[in-house]
Amino acid sequence: MSKNNDELFKNVTSHSKEYGFVFPSSEIYDGLSAVYDYGQLGAELKNNIKTYWWKAMVQMHENIVGIDSAIFMHPKIWKASGHVDGFSDPMIDNKDSKKRYRADNLLEDKIAKYEKDGKTQKAEELQAKMDEYLKAENLPGLKELIIEHEIACPVSGTRNWTDVRQFNLMFNTQFGAMADEADVVYLRPETAQGIFVNFLNVQKTGRMKIPFGIAQIGKAFRNEVIARQFIMRMREFEQMEMQFFVRPGTEMEWYAYWKEARLKWHKALGTDPAKYRYHDHTKLAHYANAAVDIEFEFPFGFKEVEGIHSRTDFDLSQHQEYSRKKMQYFDPELNAEGKPYGNYVPYVIETSIGLDRMFLLTMCNAYEEQDLSEGDKQDSRVVLKFHPALAPVKAAVLPLTKKDGLPEKAREIMDKMKLDFNMQYDEKDAIGKRYRRQDAIGTPFCITVDYQSLEDNTVTIRHRDSMEQERVAIDQLESIIGKMVSWKNLLG
Amino acid sequence: MSKNNDELFKNVTSHSKEYGFVFPSSEIYDGLSAVYDYGQLGAELKNNIKTYWWKAMVQMHENIVGIDSAIFMHPKIWKASGHVDGFSDPMIDNKDSKKRYRADNLLEDKIAKYEKDGKTQKAEELQAKMDEYLKAENLPGLKELIIEHEIACPVSGTRNWTDVRQFNLMFNTQFGAMADEADVVYLRPETAQGIFVNFLNVQKTGRMKIPFGIAQIGKAFRNEVIARQFIMRMREFEQMEMQFFVRPGTEMEWYAYWKEARLKWHKALGTDPAKYRYHDHTKLAHYANAAVDIEFEFPFGFKEVEGIHSRTDFDLSQHQEYSRKKMQYFDPELNAEGKPYGNYVPYVIETSIGLDRMFLLTMCNAYEEQDLSEGDKQDSRVVLKFHPALAPVKAAVLPLTKKDGLPEKAREIMDKMKLDFNMQYDEKDAIGKRYRRQDAIGTPFCITVDYQSLEDNTVTIRHRDSMEQERVAIDQLESIIGKMVSWKNLLG
Repeated sequence: MSKNNDELFKNVTSHSKEYGFVFPSSEIYDGLSAVYDYGQLGAELKNNIKTYWWKAMVQMHENIVGIDSAIFMHPKIWKASGHVDGFSDPMIDNKDSKKRYRADNLLEDKIAKYEKDGKTQKAEELQAKMDEYLKAENLPGLKELIIEHEIACPVSGTRNWTDVRQFNLMFNTQFGAMADEADVVYLRPETAQGIFVNFLNVQKTGRMKIPFGIAQIGKAFRNEVIARQFIMRMREFEQMEMQFFVRPGTEMEWYAYWKEARLKWHKALGTDPAKYRYHDHTKLAHYANAAVDIEFEFPFGFKEVEGIHSRTDFDLSQHQEYSRKKMQYFDPELNAEGKPYGNYVPYVIETSIGLDRMFLLTMCNAYEEQDLSEGDKQDSRVVLKFHPALAPVKAAVLPLTKKDGLPEKAREIMDKMKLDFNMQYDEKDAIGKRYRRQDAIGTPFCITVDYQSLEDNTVTIRHRDSMEQERVAIDQLESIIGKMVSWKNLLG
Repeated sequence: MSKNNDELFKNVTSHSKEYGFVFPSSEIYDGLSAVYDYGQLGAELKNNIKTYWWKAMVQMHENIVGIDSAIFMHPKIWKASGHVDGFSDPMIDNKDSKKRYRADNLLEDKIAKYEKDGKTQKAEELQAKMDEYLKAENLPGLKELIIEHEIACPVSGTRNWTDVRQFNLMFNTQFGAMADEADVVYLRPETAQGIFVNFLNVQKTGRMKIPFGIAQIGKAFRNEVIARQFIMRMREFEQMEMQFFVRPGTEMEWYAYWKEARLKWHKALGTDPAKYRYHDHTKLAHYANAAVDIEFEFPFGFKEVEGIHSRTDFDLSQHQEYSRKKMQYFDPELNAEGKPYGNYVPYVIETSIGLDRMFLLTMCNAYEEQDLSEGDKQDSRVVLKFHPALAPVKAAVLPLTKKDGLPEKAREIMDKMKLDFNMQYDEKDAIGKRYRRQDAIGTPFCITVDYQSLEDNTVTIRHRDSMEQERVAIDQLESIIGKMVSWKNLLG
């Protein structure tokens, strides 16, 4: 990334910490690698993003319901899904530094170096070989490339390498209830399987008819070796996934539908459309017959935020085989038409968005440093331009001074509104300084109680983005602010 | 529990599964012991309980903020908190059956048997010895009691026992990013420590002044040996905890405040007050100087739902010692008074409620089997009498027939209201049957669209509990139902 973008991203990161959005986990114990905590404003922002997704996916769609399945699942599920055998990275250790690396990352760095040095042909040859060996899971071949291209450990500087081994990304633990039941249980690496194994339960008890969807928000865990870019890639993260079950043969229609619907969800937030793009997968996963990423332009470049995948009947069929339970849907419409294939394993379109990435996107997109200098007067502010529906604090109530009954008047407003809106009360420091504090946490509206308020029951509303003020009646506040922060603006 | 209550609880459990509230986890793989999934209605009910708690604790209190800390935390945290050394149960294995038991549970069963057989003195003696040995952590003593009282394994029938060993209830896993960093990481057994280690971050970035609270909702994990009573005791569960930081010496006032406030929160739901009681702890945990449980009368007896604990400065002091970071608060008020102790480690009042237990409480309390027979006409229904604010579905829209434009009229109502309320549309089967289906999932209001609706834009609202109907104008629906399901009824 460019110097400016690099600095911008650093500023977003430090702003996130300074104002209580995101803290490094276990910070007083010097942190835990690739794990973060959401602070008092981050928790609210995260909840608002969840609500936006849940309302858009579940509440607005009669044929989509939400579940909340456990992180712990039967270990056979991950055998059936392919994660036990296939969800791994090729790793290599340097014997001197004891550091472990992804073999493909070491090779990629070398390729980048060749390119930088103008050795284009060498770069291309290495790339081709690496791709071939990765595809064939040829681990000795990958090691040969590392030796042949004289790649040294960045820490020890030596080329004293172990063999390349597969390293599974799933965390595991032991269920030790009974002496004979000390089974390995995995922490789920994705929430989707919790939906697949509950497909029949939900379909039958919810009387769902195909096409229908099951949505879920929840934690997932991956033992990532290299944690990068703040909350972009964490060992513990949260997903918002929806599996949409359809009649075989109709999956491409629904794939097109969800591809469009999901981008619309992002754009409704008012983000510059040029910051979004589709990235079609050319190399498909073994379970998919079509897949696309929705990418966002972060300060460090375009990166995946959400994926839409046509997963065929792969997962349900695998669970049918491994559990020996029929994972079929009886289609009353096809049956009524006398079709012989009225019973089938549905096809699935998945939409899968990383909640933490969406959070980071929202922070990066909202963050703005503004120069407000006029003539000789130097001035500037940092403002988080959140969509009002997502803003963690909807309005701040600020008495102009700490005396003459202004605080009491301000608290009356707080008490009336705080059940419906997340609010802050602030009476400390000059009013301008208080406005800046609210700008820095993205509060869209500041309600100022002044001497006139005592006379005519009006206040000023100061708008975050324009910094303009208007005078309104106190008894109109709930309706004015209610309209501006309403989900209807995003989903109406 | 009595035969009737036993049956009642069984019915609640099977109703929960049949209507999509709670499913056994990984059911198609024959389940995973002591783990459950929330289905399409359970997920909504659980979300509503969370919202009620969050609004009551965070949104209504200016001096309480919420965070969302990670499940993974630095392992030293659990050393400091006492969980690594002290959070364990005494376990014993039978060598023939290979089954593992909690030693104290085997002894308790024996005591119950003595009592049943009228051997009161023997029961009392065993109880006294067991309590003594448990307190002294005398594990050989516990084994001696098992041998002496000729306790046999319920499975093998033999008395071929191993020694009694301590078995830690924390799950652990390996962080394997680097070859030299393969640390054991625990899955948190409580959410509270995530608050304590973030105390300074939140206090400073949120400019919080004592007294203030930090609240959090999140998963916790305990390797429970004996899972009992449905979702009452699970290996993966969810907590809603709040730590309230106060000036030392004022903790008893705040303890009294929260004891009352939390019971009020429960009672606001309209539950029969006789079903709640306080249970003061006489044996206090090492960190507490006062503790009380709020107990609810489940079908299987009074059980803890929530605990209010005066935790002193134990946790913050421990983290200060282990992390070597000052966990102190600088009290500007005391400082202004020139008090020499303006800097201190705050005392803490904790409120800790099990979300899953609260869910079970809500189900048990709402479930009612009603005989509606009149004269010769046999009739009955099962109704879930949820508080309207908690009900997973707020209203169902039901066209009287499937033709003549009634479905279209009904869908207009759906489309207008579904963003604000979780709704269902149902046109299948006779209207009476549809009412019963909504009763069974606790929908407080059924909106019926009939022929008159086409003429004068009115519908009937049928009330779940009274089964009475009233005719109202369609354009009044949002405001009528909005008022009845409003959080103001609970928190206003």
